[in-house]
Amino acid sequence: MGLLVVGSVALDSVKTPFGEAQEVLGGSATYFSISASYFTEVSLVAVVGEDFPNAHIELLKKRGIQLDGLEKQKGKTFRWVGEYGYQLNEAKTLETHLNVFEKFNPQIPKAYQTANLVFLANIDPDLQRGVLHQVKSPQLVACDTMNFWIDGKPDSLKKTLGEVSILIINDGEARALAQNPNLVQAAQTILSYGPKILIVKRGEYGALMFNGESIFSAPGFPLEQVYDPTGAGDSFAGGFMGYLANTQNYSESNMRQAVIFGSVMASFCVEAFSLERLNSLNYQEIVNRYREFKRLTHFEEV
Amino acid sequence: MGLLVVGSVALDSVKTPFGEAQEVLGGSATYFSISASYFTEVSLVAVVGEDFPNAHIELLKKRGIQLDGLEKQKGKTFRWVGEYGYQLNEAKTLETHLNVFEKFNPQIPKAYQTANLVFLANIDPDLQRGVLHQVKSPQLVACDTMNFWIDGKPDSLKKTLGEVSILIINDGEARALAQNPNLVQAAQTILSYGPKILIVKRGEYGALMFNGESIFSAPGFPLEQVYDPTGAGDSFAGGFMGYLANTQNYSESNMRQAVIFGSVMASFCVEAFSLERLNSLNYQEIVNRYREFKRLTHFEEV
Repeated sequence: MGLLVVGSVALDSVKTPFGEAQEVLGGSATYFSISASYFTEVSLVAVVGEDFPNAHIELLKKRGIQLDGLEKQKGKTFRWVGEYGYQLNEAKTLETHLNVFEKFNPQIPKAYQTANLVFLANIDPDLQRGVLHQVKSPQLVACDTMNFWIDGKPDSLKKTLGEVSILIINDGEARALAQNPNLVQAAQTILSYGPKILIVKRGEYGALMFNGESIFSAPGFPLEQVYDPTGAGDSFAGGFMGYLANTQNYSESNMRQAVIFGSVMASFCVEAFSLERLNSLNYQEIVNRYREFKRLTHFEEV
Repeated sequence: MGLLVVGSVALDSVKTPFGEAQEVLGGSATYFSISASYFTEVSLVAVVGEDFPNAHIELLKKRGIQLDGLEKQKGKTFRWVGEYGYQLNEAKTLETHLNVFEKFNPQIPKAYQTANLVFLANIDPDLQRGVLHQVKSPQLVACDTMNFWIDGKPDSLKKTLGEVSILIINDGEARALAQNPNLVQAAQTILSYGPKILIVKRGEYGALMFNGESIFSAPGFPLEQVYDPTGAGDSFAGGFMGYLANTQNYSESNMRQAVIFGSVMASFCVEAFSLERLNSLNYQEIVNRYREFKRLTHFEEV
C-alpha cells in the first residue's frame, strides 16, 4: 500500500488582487492528494458535511484517489474565507467555520493501515498521533503543523515530533517552534525534538531541507503570474511525498529530487485559482518544469 | 587597467542584537573594493574628510587597492548610524551626515580612465553618468541605485540605465523601479530601460540574475551567525565584478559563476561587524565556500 494522507477537505472562498473564487474545493488533504496523485496511489482520510458537492468527489476519484476514508458527517463542510494582498506571501484569514471538521476523529480504514508512507497534514497533534497508532509500520511519516498548535499545544506537538521522520513547515513556524530567529540554529533545535529531516517552506523563496549536517536549498520558481497561493505548501508536500512513495528511495540524493518535485507542484498550484492548474497537468509538464528548475540553478564547479 | 569603483567611503556606527560598533570603516566603495580585491586590482574613487583615520587608508592599501582617486576634502567624512532588529533584513537608518560626500563630484584620474570594468555604486545618477563620460571604452559597466533616486530622480536614473550593461539592486528597489509587484514582470520592464542584465539581491534569500530570457537563481548561504548585514550588497557586487574583471569572460555561464562568487563574499561579510571577516580572508576560503554553494544546491537530473 502506498501513501496515506490525513487532513482537511474544505470549501474555500479566496480573494486576491487578480480575482476571486467562491466555495471552491480546498483543504490540506485535497491539495496534497491531487499533487501526489501524479506520482503514486493516494488514500485520503478526511471528513466532509452533507453539503459537499458530488462533483468534488468525482474530481478526486478521477485522479485515482482512494476515498474509503472520506467520512460524510451530518452538518456542513469546513469553510475557509481568506484574502491576499499584492505581496501574495501570507493569507489574511477572514472567516474559519470548522463545522464537521471540529469533531474530526480520523479512523483509518483497515486497508490503509499498511501504508508505506503517511502524511499528517496540519491537524491537532493529538489526532496526528492517534492516526500513527492506527498505522502498522510505515517506512516514512511526515507531518505539518501551524502556529495555532505551536502556541496552543507545544507539549503534544513535541510528542508527535518524537514519532515522525520529517517535519514540513514554513519559516515563520520553524522560528516560532524553536524560539530562535536564526533558521540554521532553529533547524538544529527542531531536529533535536525527533525528526531526522526538517523541510522549511519559504513561499516564493523556495525551500530548505535540513538532513543531519546537510542543507539543501531549492529555489522558488520565478513566475510571471501568481494568481492564488492557497494550497502551495500542501501541493509541495504532495509532490515531495508522492515522489518518495513512487521511488521508495530515502537517500539524500533522492530526497533532494523529491524537494524539487514538491517545488514543481507548488509552482503549478499558484498559477491558477483553487485546483484549476494542479488538476489538469500531465506528467511530461511536470518533468519539463523539473528540468527548468535545473536550468534555473545550474552553475559550473571551480 | 582592471576594475574602477566610484562610491562612498564612510564611518559607520551600527547596532544589531549581537553587539555594536562605533565609527568603523564603511561605505559602498569600501565594501566593494575590499571584496573585489581578492580577485583583481581595484581603483577606488571617493571622498573623505580631514578626520579620516590613516589606519583605514593603510587597510585599503594593504589589500592592494589603488587610492589615487580617493580625494581628501576639508570637513568631516560621511557618517551613517543604523540599527538592525532580529530579522536582520533591513537597516533602520538613525542618522545620515553626508558631510564632504554632499558635494562629491567624482574626478577620474587619467590612469583609471582606461578601466575595463566600472562599478557605479549608489550615488546620484547624474554623477554616475558624469563618471561614465570620463571613462574611455569600458567592456562592462554595472551600477547600483536606491529608492531615494528611484523616487527623486527617475528620469536621470533612466538615462543612466540606458548607458550601463548591468543593474544590481535589491528586490524592493526592483519592484519600485518597475512599479510592479511581480519580480519577473518587473525585471522585463527594467531590462527595457537599457541594461542587458539585471541582478536582484534578496538578502538571506540569495539573488536572481535576469539575462534576456534566462533566469539564474543563487541561494543565500544558510549561516548560523549573522552579526551585521551592513555592506552585504556591496560585497556581493565586489565579488561579482572582481571575478569578471579577473576572467574577462562575459558568457552566461561565467556570469553565473560570478554571481556565486558575489554570494560567497556577501556571506563572509555578514559573519562579523564592519570589515572584520571580509578583510581577513584567503582565496582558498573563498573557493571552499563556493564549493559549499555547489553542495547546497546540487540535485540530480531526471
